[in-house]
Amino acid sequence: MRIAVIGAGALGLYYGAMLQRAGQQVSFLLRRDFQAITQGGLSVTSPAGDFHLDQVAGFRDSAAIGPVDLVLVGLKTFANDRLVDLVRPLMTGDTAVLTLQNGLGNEELLADAFGAQRVLGGIAFLCSNRGEPGEVHHLGQGPIRLGEFAGGLSARAEAIADTFNAAGVRCEAVADLVKARWEKLVWNIPFNGLCALTGQPTDALLAHPPARAEVRALMTEVVAGGNAQGLSAPIDGPAFIDRMIELTEGMDAYRPSMMIDRLEGRPLELEAIYGIPLRHAAARGVEMPRVRMLHALLGVNG
Amino acid sequence: MRIAVIGAGALGLYYGAMLQRAGQQVSFLLRRDFQAITQGGLSVTSPAGDFHLDQVAGFRDSAAIGPVDLVLVGLKTFANDRLVDLVRPLMTGDTAVLTLQNGLGNEELLADAFGAQRVLGGIAFLCSNRGEPGEVHHLGQGPIRLGEFAGGLSARAEAIADTFNAAGVRCEAVADLVKARWEKLVWNIPFNGLCALTGQPTDALLAHPPARAEVRALMTEVVAGGNAQGLSAPIDGPAFIDRMIELTEGMDAYRPSMMIDRLEGRPLELEAIYGIPLRHAAARGVEMPRVRMLHALLGVNG
Repeated sequence: MRIAVIGAGALGLYYGAMLQRAGQQVSFLLRRDFQAITQGGLSVTSPAGDFHLDQVAGFRDSAAIGPVDLVLVGLKTFANDRLVDLVRPLMTGDTAVLTLQNGLGNEELLADAFGAQRVLGGIAFLCSNRGEPGEVHHLGQGPIRLGEFAGGLSARAEAIADTFNAAGVRCEAVADLVKARWEKLVWNIPFNGLCALTGQPTDALLAHPPARAEVRALMTEVVAGGNAQGLSAPIDGPAFIDRMIELTEGMDAYRPSMMIDRLEGRPLELEAIYGIPLRHAAARGVEMPRVRMLHALLGVNG
Repeated sequence: MRIAVIGAGALGLYYGAMLQRAGQQVSFLLRRDFQAITQGGLSVTSPAGDFHLDQVAGFRDSAAIGPVDLVLVGLKTFANDRLVDLVRPLMTGDTAVLTLQNGLGNEELLADAFGAQRVLGGIAFLCSNRGEPGEVHHLGQGPIRLGEFAGGLSARAEAIADTFNAAGVRCEAVADLVKARWEKLVWNIPFNGLCALTGQPTDALLAHPPARAEVRALMTEVVAGGNAQGLSAPIDGPAFIDRMIELTEGMDAYRPSMMIDRLEGRPLELEAIYGIPLRHAAARGVEMPRVRMLHALLGVNG
């Protein structure tokens, strides 16, 4: 399968490298790492075993890649104003585009430009970060859950999931992408924002009982917001929240991407993780006051 | 009048200096500034005119000061576990103790140790900070509002207010100290916490409409908490909140004390400004959920 990776941060580099190692024909759109990767290849460190790819097809613009079968999008959502232009040269009659970006609104952007039938979305539970140029460090992962933007299970979604699984990346096709996105928000909304704001990793939040209670209260608001979206079946709030807390305790002192973005002075993914979810919930009559407060505070700039 | 200043930070040094300049007999309990002040005196810079006091009575412990007529407390509340011991050697039969500390709980601590009839509290709207040892910079001020812990107007409170006014510090005696304390919390709770958490001064918060809305929402919660305390007359929420916002806009890029404390790695006055007010409100059946969230986040430590 011809695959193009757009947005080659830690997530794009890691999944792209795994797919290439399994024999897929992968092209990477690169910026920071272009020189290092095209000259020296790509190194992955991982608890599942380190490996190095000597020959990596890196490009500076997507027109040079040309049409592919699958576009994998890992772009930070604050760069979404460039997303459609970056993807357009890769699209032919039956190219599928799978966005693994954070939050809400990404599939809509691609569907408006290329048609809903081309678009899939996925949720990646991945802990990884970039090292020096040409290096990506993989720390751990849960499965990818992906589905059709138009809803329902499809042979295409199953085939993409099979491709990931064959490459050693656990992946599951789901019928209700909206539900999967909101389930991920139940984790992302409290931990990304609270860690970014306090400058402390996940374990520090959970160790302080009043902050732990706020994490649960935020999660409860997000579950209510999600369950107002006409899901195939509601998210089971208390049980799901318990599971998310437990999962987070297993991650030790994890620093979510928004905390790292803030510490390094980059823009934050506020619109995808907070702004759009707040509007989708409000449109169905659900207020999320704690989420709104968090969003407001994260948006204060000097 | 023999006056002892306990907790000679920016507030204690400034008020003490003003009172001494007006002819009062002031003793300062000093720590960081002991050597600089006892050897070189105390310098005040102020828009109302700079001045220098050559001879300042500085002490390393309050037993050496001995009994006085009035104790002025400016100690940071996170040091309140030492408060009673610091004040005890200064008390005689009719010594009055006036705490100008932030938040709630300070008068109670003094009343438990020395009797309610000895205790007054005051709210200082003061912008000042410490410079090098022996220097305090006064930037601007509103009036001090002080009153009896036991409630009601008293000749003693009026006399202390006269003493401040004669020294060039505007001061007003009020009958309802509880109301004055909660009115100050309407400002302190949003701005101290939000500026500390975001690392941004007051003007940055007010310039971001969603954060400005959260400031108002926090203030509305505090007004409700205060108005449940059996005040002599309720705080007029909307009008008072408008006034606080307007006053803050006049302060430009003000950095509240808690923001400075956090930037400099000092403890925060969380119990006086958040913990006790939350409990007093809850005791009267008022929940302040945004205040609770702010308190929780400020308490997260690495």
